Formats: sequence, structure tokens, C-alpha cells
Amino acid sequence: MKRLQYTKILVPVDGSKFAEKALLHACELAKNYHSEVTLIYVVDKSYTISFLDKKEYLSMVRKFADKIIKKSLSLTVQNGIDAKHLIKEGNVADEIIKFAKKDNTNLIVMGSRGLGKTLRLFLGSISNKLVNNSPCSVLIIKN
Amino acid sequence: MKRLQYTKILVPVDGSKFAEKALLHACELAKNYHSEVTLIYVVDKSYTISFLDKKEYLSMVRKFADKIIKKSLSLTVQNGIDAKHLIKEGNVADEIIKFAKKDNTNLIVMGSRGLGKTLRLFLGSISNKLVNNSPCSVLIIKN
Repeated sequence: MKRLQYTKILVPVDGSKFAEKALLHACELAKNYHSEVTLIYVVDKSYTISFLDKKEYLSMVRKFADKIIKKSLSLTVQNGIDAKHLIKEGNVADEIIKFAKKDNTNLIVMGSRGLGKTLRLFLGSISNKLVNNSPCSVLIIKN
Repeated sequence: MKRLQYTKILVPVDGSKFAEKALLHACELAKNYHSEVTLIYVVDKSYTISFLDKKEYLSMVRKFADKIIKKSLSLTVQNGIDAKHLIKEGNVADEIIKFAKKDNTNLIVMGSRGLGKTLRLFLGSISNKLVNNSPCSVLIIKN
């Protein structure tokens, strides 16, 4: 049988412990399948917070994105993986799908839930949108 | 780092080429992670076909289930895996989730689409329901 490969693994990170767990699974798979790992953080431009103006919000989220990418890269290094990384801005699922198509990603590994209870419904819909529209296989890590 | 394991992998089969591809991925993962593989076919009791009465429909689907389980078992053997199997009756996603909870499944591997164009919308909703309600991680195999 031709070996089924996951040559390129994409991991959306968002600073949540769920995304962190997904990243650990991605590192394990990457070691088994000798995959290239890319971390992606998408600054959600469609999301707003009532007490912040758009500029303040974007400035804060961009700083947060840098911090989370650095933290995630450090976690991959600790797990023996030298990952690539990128930060995009736009709609979270759309940007992930767009990059996966462009980069010929074989597998997206992501947490089933994101930051905090209030965002769960919203982030739940990201994983559904990815499962329905992703050009490649999707591994949703639970708990 | 503690190694992340997929001790028990559950593969819902439905006779589609998508489920078959998912099964090949599950076999590959099982070899890498020394996992136990279980095949599940759920006879959908909520589904009806206008020109068949319920009894005829169930009798045909039960025979089909046996055939698909045998075919899938043969495919796993060809790929070096000695899988368990079971046939359930009820709502597809509910039965898969129920078994995964009971059996402490670590990973469900399934195709993103099932049999034929007409069932796609319906089966798409099965993978969404699983992603949202599964007790364990879910790998959705595309293409």
C-alpha cells in the first residue's frame, strides 16, 4: 500500500489550552510522518469588542498574536519540531482555508474549543466551517 | 514529553469510497500508534426511502451493513490490522458517540462525505454533529 502521508501540517493557534494541546498532537504526528509544521494565527478583523475602538482592538490583538506565535514556536522546539509560522488578518476560517489551499497543506490540526466560554459558540463554528470547506483533512483535538 | 496516544481508534464505515479512504488512514495511524481499531456501521433507523416500506428498507440496509463490514474487515487485514467490528441501529451520530463514550475511544477517523450526492448534505451534518459532540478527537479525511 502507498503510504498515506501528512507532508504539511497546519496548526491554527489562538492562545487557548485547546490549541496548545492540538499543537502537541501535531508535533507527535510530525515526528511520525516527518511532516513540515506551520503555525498560523489569524487576527479576526470581523470581531469587535464594545468598549474598544477598532484601532485599539487591532493593536492589542496584533501584539497578542506575536506573543502567542512566539510561545507556540517555543513549544514546538521543546518537542523537537522546527516550525514555520505566519500571522494573517481577516476571517479566521477563510484565512486558514486560503493558506491551506495555497500551501498544499495535507492536514489541519486544531483544538475543538478556543478561548473562554463566551467564545465557544463562535469558535465551534470555526471548526465546523473548516470541516465543511477545508481542502484537506482536519483533525479536531478534544479535551 | 508524555507521548500522546491513540490507543483506540473508531472508524464509521458506510460503503462509500470516502469511508474507505478514512479506513486506510486509520490503519496507517494504528500501525504508528499500535492502536486497536474498531469498525462501526450504523443502520440509520430515522432514514426512510419513499418507495420502500420500513421493514423492506431495514432488511436491505442490514444486509448492506453486513457486506460493508466484511469488505472493510478484509481491507484492514490487507493493511496489517486485525480490527474489531460492530453494527448498531439508530441515529448515526448518536450511536457513534454513544459507543465512543462506552469504549473510551481516543480517536474517530471518518470520511468527510458519504454515499452519493443526494446524501452529502445529510452526511455532512453527521461529521458536524460528531465534531461538536464527540467525547474524543475526530479526524475528518478529505478527498
